[in-house]
Amino acid sequence: MGAFPAVLALLLLPLLTYSRYQPTWESIDSRPLPGWYDQAKFGIFIHWGVFSVPSFGSEWFWYYWQKQKQPAYVDFMQKNYPPDFKYQDFASSFTAEFFNAKEWTDILASSGAKYIVLTTKHHEGFTLWGSKVSWNWNAVDVGPKRDLVDEIASAVRAQGDMRLGLYHSLFEWFNPLFELDAANLFTTNFFPTSKSLPELYELVVKYKPEVLWSDGDGDAPAKYWNSTGFLAWLYNDSPVRDTVVTNDRWGQGSICTHGGYYTCSDRYQPGHLLKHKWENCMTIDTKSWGYRRNAALKDYLSTEQLVGTLVETVSCGGNLLMNIGPTHDGRIAPIFEERLRQMGQWLKVNGEGIYNTTAWRAQNDSVTPHLWYTYRPQEKTVFAVLLQWPDKGSVVLTEPVAVAGVTKVELLGFGVLQWQAMKPSGLLVALPSLSVSQMPCQWAWTLKLTGAT
Amino acid sequence: MGAFPAVLALLLLPLLTYSRYQPTWESIDSRPLPGWYDQAKFGIFIHWGVFSVPSFGSEWFWYYWQKQKQPAYVDFMQKNYPPDFKYQDFASSFTAEFFNAKEWTDILASSGAKYIVLTTKHHEGFTLWGSKVSWNWNAVDVGPKRDLVDEIASAVRAQGDMRLGLYHSLFEWFNPLFELDAANLFTTNFFPTSKSLPELYELVVKYKPEVLWSDGDGDAPAKYWNSTGFLAWLYNDSPVRDTVVTNDRWGQGSICTHGGYYTCSDRYQPGHLLKHKWENCMTIDTKSWGYRRNAALKDYLSTEQLVGTLVETVSCGGNLLMNIGPTHDGRIAPIFEERLRQMGQWLKVNGEGIYNTTAWRAQNDSVTPHLWYTYRPQEKTVFAVLLQWPDKGSVVLTEPVAVAGVTKVELLGFGVLQWQAMKPSGLLVALPSLSVSQMPCQWAWTLKLTGAT
Amino acid sequence: MGAFPAVLALLLLPLLTYSRYQPTWESIDSRPLPGWYDQAKFGIFIHWGVFSVPSFGSEWFWYYWQKQKQPAYVDFMQKNYPPDFKYQDFASSFTAEFFNAKEWTDILASSGAKYIVLTTKHHEGFTLWGSKVSWNWNAVDVGPKRDLVDEIASAVRAQGDMRLGLYHSLFEWFNPLFELDAANLFTTNFFPTSKSLPELYELVVKYKPEVLWSDGDGDAPAKYWNSTGFLAWLYNDSPVRDTVVTNDRWGQGSICTHGGYYTCSDRYQPGHLLKHKWENCMTIDTKSWGYRRNAALKDYLSTEQLVGTLVETVSCGGNLLMNIGPTHDGRIAPIFEERLRQMGQWLKVNGEGIYNTTAWRAQNDSVTPHLWYTYRPQEKTVFAVLLQWPDKGSVVLTEPVAVAGVTKVELLGFGVLQWQAMKPSGLLVALPSLSVSQMPCQWAWTLKLTGAT
Amino acid sequence: MGAFPAVLALLLLPLLTYSRYQPTWESIDSRPLPGWYDQAKFGIFIHWGVFSVPSFGSEWFWYYWQKQKQPAYVDFMQKNYPPDFKYQDFASSFTAEFFNAKEWTDILASSGAKYIVLTTKHHEGFTLWGSKVSWNWNAVDVGPKRDLVDEIASAVRAQGDMRLGLYHSLFEWFNPLFELDAANLFTTNFFPTSKSLPELYELVVKYKPEVLWSDGDGDAPAKYWNSTGFLAWLYNDSPVRDTVVTNDRWGQGSICTHGGYYTCSDRYQPGHLLKHKWENCMTIDTKSWGYRRNAALKDYLSTEQLVGTLVETVSCGGNLLMNIGPTHDGRIAPIFEERLRQMGQWLKVNGEGIYNTTAWRAQNDSVTPHLWYTYRPQEKTVFAVLLQWPDKGSVVLTEPVAVAGVTKVELLGFGVLQWQAMKPSGLLVALPSLSVSQMPCQWAWTLKLTGAT
Repeated sequence: MGAFPAVLALLLLPLLTYSRYQPTWESIDSRPLPGWYDQAKFGIFIHWGVFSVPSFGSEWFWYYWQKQKQPAYVDFMQKNYPPDFKYQDFASSFTAEFFNAKEWTDILASSGAKYIVLTTKHHEGFTLWGSKVSWNWNAVDVGPKRDLVDEIASAVRAQGDMRLGLYHSLFEWFNPLFELDAANLFTTNFFPTSKSLPELYELVVKYKPEVLWSDGDGDAPAKYWNSTGFLAWLYNDSPVRDTVVTNDRWGQGSICTHGGYYTCSDRYQPGHLLKHKWENCMTIDTKSWGYRRNAALKDYLSTEQLVGTLVETVSCGGNLLMNIGPTHDGRIAPIFEERLRQMGQWLKVNGEGIYNTTAWRAQNDSVTPHLWYTYRPQEKTVFAVLLQWPDKGSVVLTEPVAVAGVTKVELLGFGVLQWQAMKPSGLLVALPSLSVSQMPCQWAWTLKLTGAT
Repeated sequence: MGAFPAVLALLLLPLLTYSRYQPTWESIDSRPLPGWYDQAKFGIFIHWGVFSVPSFGSEWFWYYWQKQKQPAYVDFMQKNYPPDFKYQDFASSFTAEFFNAKEWTDILASSGAKYIVLTTKHHEGFTLWGSKVSWNWNAVDVGPKRDLVDEIASAVRAQGDMRLGLYHSLFEWFNPLFELDAANLFTTNFFPTSKSLPELYELVVKYKPEVLWSDGDGDAPAKYWNSTGFLAWLYNDSPVRDTVVTNDRWGQGSICTHGGYYTCSDRYQPGHLLKHKWENCMTIDTKSWGYRRNAALKDYLSTEQLVGTLVETVSCGGNLLMNIGPTHDGRIAPIFEERLRQMGQWLKVNGEGIYNTTAWRAQNDSVTPHLWYTYRPQEKTVFAVLLQWPDKGSVVLTEPVAVAGVTKVELLGFGVLQWQAMKPSGLLVALPSLSVSQMPCQWAWTLKLTGAT
Repeated sequence: MGAFPAVLALLLLPLLTYSRYQPTWESIDSRPLPGWYDQAKFGIFIHWGVFSVPSFGSEWFWYYWQKQKQPAYVDFMQKNYPPDFKYQDFASSFTAEFFNAKEWTDILASSGAKYIVLTTKHHEGFTLWGSKVSWNWNAVDVGPKRDLVDEIASAVRAQGDMRLGLYHSLFEWFNPLFELDAANLFTTNFFPTSKSLPELYELVVKYKPEVLWSDGDGDAPAKYWNSTGFLAWLYNDSPVRDTVVTNDRWGQGSICTHGGYYTCSDRYQPGHLLKHKWENCMTIDTKSWGYRRNAALKDYLSTEQLVGTLVETVSCGGNLLMNIGPTHDGRIAPIFEERLRQMGQWLKVNGEGIYNTTAWRAQNDSVTPHLWYTYRPQEKTVFAVLLQWPDKGSVVLTEPVAVAGVTKVELLGFGVLQWQAMKPSGLLVALPSLSVSQMPCQWAWTLKLTGAT
Repeated sequence: MGAFPAVLALLLLPLLTYSRYQPTWESIDSRPLPGWYDQAKFGIFIHWGVFSVPSFGSEWFWYYWQKQKQPAYVDFMQKNYPPDFKYQDFASSFTAEFFNAKEWTDILASSGAKYIVLTTKHHEGFTLWGSKVSWNWNAVDVGPKRDLVDEIASAVRAQGDMRLGLYHSLFEWFNPLFELDAANLFTTNFFPTSKSLPELYELVVKYKPEVLWSDGDGDAPAKYWNSTGFLAWLYNDSPVRDTVVTNDRWGQGSICTHGGYYTCSDRYQPGHLLKHKWENCMTIDTKSWGYRRNAALKDYLSTEQLVGTLVETVSCGGNLLMNIGPTHDGRIAPIFEERLRQMGQWLKVNGEGIYNTTAWRAQNDSVTPHLWYTYRPQEKTVFAVLLQWPDKGSVVLTEPVAVAGVTKVELLGFGVLQWQAMKPSGLLVALPSLSVSQMPCQWAWTLKLTGAT
C-alpha cells in the first residue's frame, strides 16, 4: 500500500475482533455479495470526461487518434484544429455549464434504475473530482471547475432511491509514470503508488460509493496494482465495507474470475444462467460509451431492444448496466432521456417481474420464442415476460408446472387471464383482445404465475 | 427598386408581350398560387444561424439579452462569458463541421415532407450565404466558411423529391441602417435599398427557391420595403416566376391579407376551413425555433401530437411547416431525426389521405371526436383520419353519405372494412380486432371511402 | 454625393454668400493650405487595426497571405491556425484591453509631435469606430467593443497641444462591392456610394479631424470615388473647413499632383526643396507600418537616424509623419516609446530650429556634409543643424553670409560661440570642447545664426 | 532520496575510492566553488512560464490574484475573462510560436554574459520540459508543445561561449500535495518525494546544467526537501559534479548561509566586499521578473544604470544575474534586446576589467565618487571604473599606490594617459579631451593601472 493513503487508512482503522479479509484472491473472493445489488437489477452507466468534448467516434478518441492513428480521427483533427493541437487542449472546453445534478438524477431515477455508475476517471486520466494526485488534470482545476463527482454523489443521495457507483480506470493510456512502469515490465510501481491507489482511497473515503467499478488493467497483473491489498482494506475497513460491491476488473487475469460480480466483457450477454453474479454493461448508442456527435438515429437502440436486453439479462441472473454519454456542456441528450423515461414507463408496469427476482430454473421457454422467465422466491411467483405480443391470441408456457384450480395467471397492468393445461406439461394462456390504446404497456408484457412451479 | 439589383434585373428582363403583374397589392394578390404547393401539404422549416451557437432559450437570444435584458439571458452570459462578449463573438463558433447536406436531405425526405424552408437570414442579419451586401457577417466569411444555402439547395435538387424554400427576414434587429430609417419613421430607406432588397434579388437569382418565405417587417409598411415592386419582379421576370410561392409577411398590415399564402401567426391553427390557402408553421420543440441546448424531452412534441397537427391542418386546408433547429456544428439532433422518420413511417401508410387532397365539405366529424376529413376530388374519395383508435371496435362517421352496395370503406394499410348505414346519415364502420403488432401504423389511422359523398 | 450623407450635409449647410470651391481639381487645388500644418513639422502616424493581431510581416498581411499567397504568410497560418481560419477570425483577438488614450497622447506629445494621424480604416475595411455602413466589421461591434477613434480624438483634444488627423483608405482589398465595381471597370459605383463616401462624411462630422489622410485608390480614378465632390464639401461646408488639411491620395493620378499636401510615395525623401508642401511618411520599424512581433532590434531605426530624417525633411520643406504600430492589446511598445521620448528630448533643445521654420535658400551645406539649414523668416534667423559633431573642434558653414560685429552664432542649449569669416563667404564656427556629460543634447546639434543672411 | 530517481542514481553510481560529500551542510559547504563561475561575472536570468501569458503585474500573478486577492489582479481578470476562468486556462495560450533558441542565444551572447539561468519551473509548478511527474502541466503536453529546456540547452551548447543554468522552484504555491505536507507541518513529505526531487534529478541527468539555481523553500526546512541528500548526489555522482555550481536557496534558513554561492535576497547589492562568493540577481524591468505588458519605458533600467550595477557588483565580489522576461509567444522584446546588446558593446571595450577579475582591497574610492575598483591578480593589474565622466578633465584615484616611472595608466579603448602622484597617496590622472564621437564607449569608462599596488 502506498505511503499516501496510509494516513487515511490509519484514521479509519477500527478496533477489530472479528475475522478480516486477507489480501489474497481466495479471501477476497470469499466475501458474499451484499444483497442489494442482485435485487437492484438495473443501473445506468455514465461515461463523461474530456472525450465528451470532441465527442467524435468514441471515448477512446485519444488512443485511436494518437496511438493507433486511425484515419477518421487524424482527419477530423487535421480538418478542424491547428496543427499542434493536443488532446489536453480539449479540457478547457469541457464546460458543463448546463450540468445540473438534480435534473440528471430525476431523469436517471425516472428510468427505474436503482444505481448509477459514473466514470470518475477514464483511461485518459482526467478525474471528475479534484484529485490531489491529478493536479491540473481534473475537473476542478480545468474545464468545469466543479467537483462533478461530489455534485452527482450528493444528488444521488438526495434522490434517495438509487445507489452511487463510481467507475475508475486503473491504468492511463499516456501517463508517463505508467509508461515507465510498463517499460520496466511492471517491476517498478511508481504509477500505482503515486496515482491509482491514492485515487481509489480518495474516492472511497470521500464519496462512499456502493459500487466501485474498476476497469483498465493495462495488461498489468493485480499484484502490480496491489488490488487484493486495496480490496482487503475496502472490505475490512472502508466506510462502505458493509454495502460496497465491486466488479472483476482488477488486473490481468482477474476478469470473469476474481473480485466481486463478473463483467467478463463489454456487452456481455451469455444467454444462459451463470453461477456467479454478473453484469451486462452495454450502451444505448451501439458504437460508443462516450457521447458522439456523429451518432445517427439508427445507432441508438430502440426502447424495444433495450427492454428485451433487460429482460434477457435479468432472466439469466445478470444485472443490466445501461450506458449513456452526457455532452461536454452537461446535458443528457433528449434521445437518451426518451429511452430512459420509456424504460421507466415499462418498469412501472412490469417492475414486479424484474426487481428482487432471481433467475428461475428455466431461463427462456423451450417452445415459445422471445419468452423469458424470472422468479420471486419469497412469493413463489414465476414471471414470464413476452418480448412479442402473440398475434394468435394465446401463448404457450412450456416450462411451468401448473395446477388447475390453484395456479393463477395475471397479465401485469391488466388482470387475470384464463389458461388451460397442456400435455405433458405447460400452460396455454389466453390473451385478451386489446386494442393498441388498451394495452397495459408497450414493448414487452409480463405474465405472473402464482401457484405454479 | 434599389440601384444594386437593377443590373441583374436588366440582364434577366425578357421581352414580354403578355400582361404583367403591377407593383400593387391588387395585382400581386390576383396571381393564382402555383398548384404544387397545395398538393405538397407538408414541409420542414429549418432555423439555423448564429443563434444556434448559444442555442439557449430561443433564436431571439440577441434581442432578449440585449434589448429586453431578460434575466435568464443576462445571467447566462454573465455566468459563462467575459464581460465584453458580444453576440457577434458567437459567429466564430458557428462551425458546422458535421454539416453534410446529403445527410440532411436524406433525413428530411424520410419525413415525407415535400419542401423545406431554410432561414437564409434571420433577424440577426447573418446570411447563410456569401451575401455581397453582408460582408463579414455571413457564413462564408465567418464561422462555417461555407455557402450553406448553396449546399442545401444543391442537395435538395439532387434529392429530387422535395422543393427548396428560403426564409428571409426583411428587417434586422440591430442593423444601424435599419435603426436610422426607423428613427426617421421610415421616411428614409437606406436599409432596404442597400441591404434587404439586394439580398432578396441575390437569393432568387442565385438559388431559385420555389418558396420565398418572408418575415420580419420591423413595423414598417410594405411601401418602405418596396414589397410589391419586388414581388412584381418575382412574378414577372424572375427565374422562378412560374413556380414560386410566397407568404404574406411583406410589411406591416400585409400578414393574413396580402401576398401569397397566409401564415397569419406562428403556430396558426384555425380549426376550420379558410378560403385562402394557408400554412401552419410550428415547432417540434414547443419553446423555440432555433436549437436549444436547454430543451428537455417534455418540450418536444410527440410523434402522436405531430401527426395530429398535420391531419388537422390539412383537413382545414392548410399546409404544415414543421420546424427543426440544427446545431451549431451542423447536426440534426437524433430526437428530431426520430420525429421526422416517424412522420415518414406514418405517411408511408397514410399519405394517400394527405398529399394531393383538398379540404372536404366537413373538416371534422360532428359526432365522433378526434376525426378529421380530407378529400381527393379526382377520385371522389373521402378520407377520415382517426387520431384515436376506438376501443369499442367501431367508429361512427357522421358526415359522409354512403350508399349500400356502392360505398367501399378501407383502412389504409389493412384492407376493406364492413360498415352499415346510420340514420339519418353516416356510417358505422366496424374496425378489425388487431393486436398491437398487427396494426398498420401507429398514432393515427385512415379510413378511405369510395362511392360516398 | 451619395444618398446617405445628404441628410447630414443638409443639416450643416450654411447660408453662404462668399465664393465656394467647385468639385474640380482646379478649384480644389486652389485652396491655400491652412498655415498650422506647415508650422507643425512633425506628426506621428499610427497604424492600428485587425492586422495588429497577427502582427506578423506587415499590415498587408491579409493581402500577402490570401491574394499573393506569399510563402512566409501561408506557412505562418498553416503552422499556427486551423485549416479554415480566415482573416476575419483575427478580429475577436483585437482586444485593446491595455489601451488608454490618455497614456497614448502623453507618450505621443512627449515626442514633440504636433499632430497625429490614426488609421481609422485600412485596406482591410475594418473601421476603428462604429461605422453605420460597416456593421459587424468595426471596433465597436467586434474586438475592442470600443469606439477607438472617439477615445483617441477626445484625448488629443484634452491634451491641447496636438491636432487630430484621420487616415482613411478609399478602397478595401476584399470588399465584394468594390470587387463588383472593379469587375465592371468602375462603371458602377456601388462601393463609394454605400461605403467609402458615407464613411468619410461620418468621420468628418463626428470627429472633426484637421488632417484627413486619404489612401488606397484601388487603381480607380478620382471620378469614381467622387473625390472632388467630397473635397468641395469638406472645404466649403464641413465643420473643419477652415483648418482641415488633406493629402494627395484621392484617386488614380492624383498622387503628387492634386489635393492638399503631397505625399508622393511612402518614405518620400526628395533631398531637395519642393515647391509644393509635402510630407515624408515613414516608419520607425523599417519593414512594416503595423506592429510586427517578428521585428528584431535592427529593424528599428535609431533615434540618431530619426533625428536626421526629421532635420533633412524639414530642411527640404516637408513635414515628417513618423509611424508607430501599437499592439493588438492596445500598447505602444517600450521600444517605440523610447524613440518617441528621445525625439522629444532632442526637440526640447532644438525645437526652435524646427517648428515654425521654413525652408531656407540652401537646404544643405555645399562643403560640410551632414549639415542642414532651416529658417525663421519672422526673426530672420538661420539654423544650421549638424548631424555629426565635428571632431576637429570647428565647423564651416559655407552658405550663410555673415557680418562681423553683427552676426551672432549660438549653439542651442549651450550659448554663444566664436566664429570668423571665411573667404569668399561662409563662417568658421569654433565649437566648445565639451565632455559627453556637458553636451546640450545627443544625436544632432543646432547652430542659430542671427544677423546673417 | 525519493524512490523514483533511485534507479537513475544507481545507474550512475561510480565505484569510488576518494572521499565523498556527505548529506550534511558541513560537508556540502566544504566544497570549493568551481572556478569558472567567479570568472564569468555576468549572466542572464530568464523568467518564462505560464505567467508570461497574462504578463500583467508580476510573475507572481497567480498568487497575487488568487491567494492575496490584490484588487489590481482581481479587476484585470473580472474585466477581461469569464467568471470561472482559472490560471490553468492561461496555459493553452503559452504558444511560443516565435521562439527560436538560436535567435535567443545570439542575443544573449551579444550581451557579453557568460551564463544563462532559465526558469525551468517557477512556483506555479509548470515545467518547461516534459517532466514525468508533472503530466499535463508542462510545456510539452500543454501550450508550446515543445521541450523548451532542451531547445535552450542545445542552443547554449551550440553557441559555445556560455554555460547553462537552470532555475527550479522547490515548492509550488498551489500543489495539493505540498499543501497537504504544509498542513501536516512538514511531517509528511509526499511532495518532495513525488515531485520536487524527481524533477531535480531529471533536470540534472537530462540537461546537465552547470548552474542549478534553487528557489522557493515554501517555509519548509532543508531537511523536508532532503536538500543535503540531493546536493551530495549532485556533487558526488551527477554528470556535472565537477563543474556545477548551486546557490543558497535550499530550505528555510539556508539562504545566505549554506549551499553554493549566496544570493541572500533578490536585487542583493551589499555595496562592500563579502567573504563568500555571491550573486546579485536583478531585473531590467524594475517591477517584475516575468514579462509585463503593462510596463512603461520608465520601468526599465537604462543601460547606464545597468552598467553601473554590473561594475559595483563585480567590484564587491559578486556576479550579476540580470533578468529578462520573454513573451508568451517566444520573443525577447526589442527593449530588452537593446539593453542586452548595449551591455555587450560596453563589455567589448571594458571586459578586461570585469571578466576573470577579483575584488581588490578597495572596492570604491574613498574620495572620488562613482568609481569602483577591480583587480587581475595574474597580471597584478588594478582597474578603476568611472561611472561618470569627470567634467573637469582629470580624476583622482585615492586608493592605488603608484610609482613614478613604473606605474602605467591606460583608458581602455583609448590608450595611455598622463598621471601624477598625489600626497599622501593616490594618483591624479589627466583625462583626454574627447568629443562625444571620439569616446571609446558610453556609460562608464575603465582606467587600467599596471605597476601600481
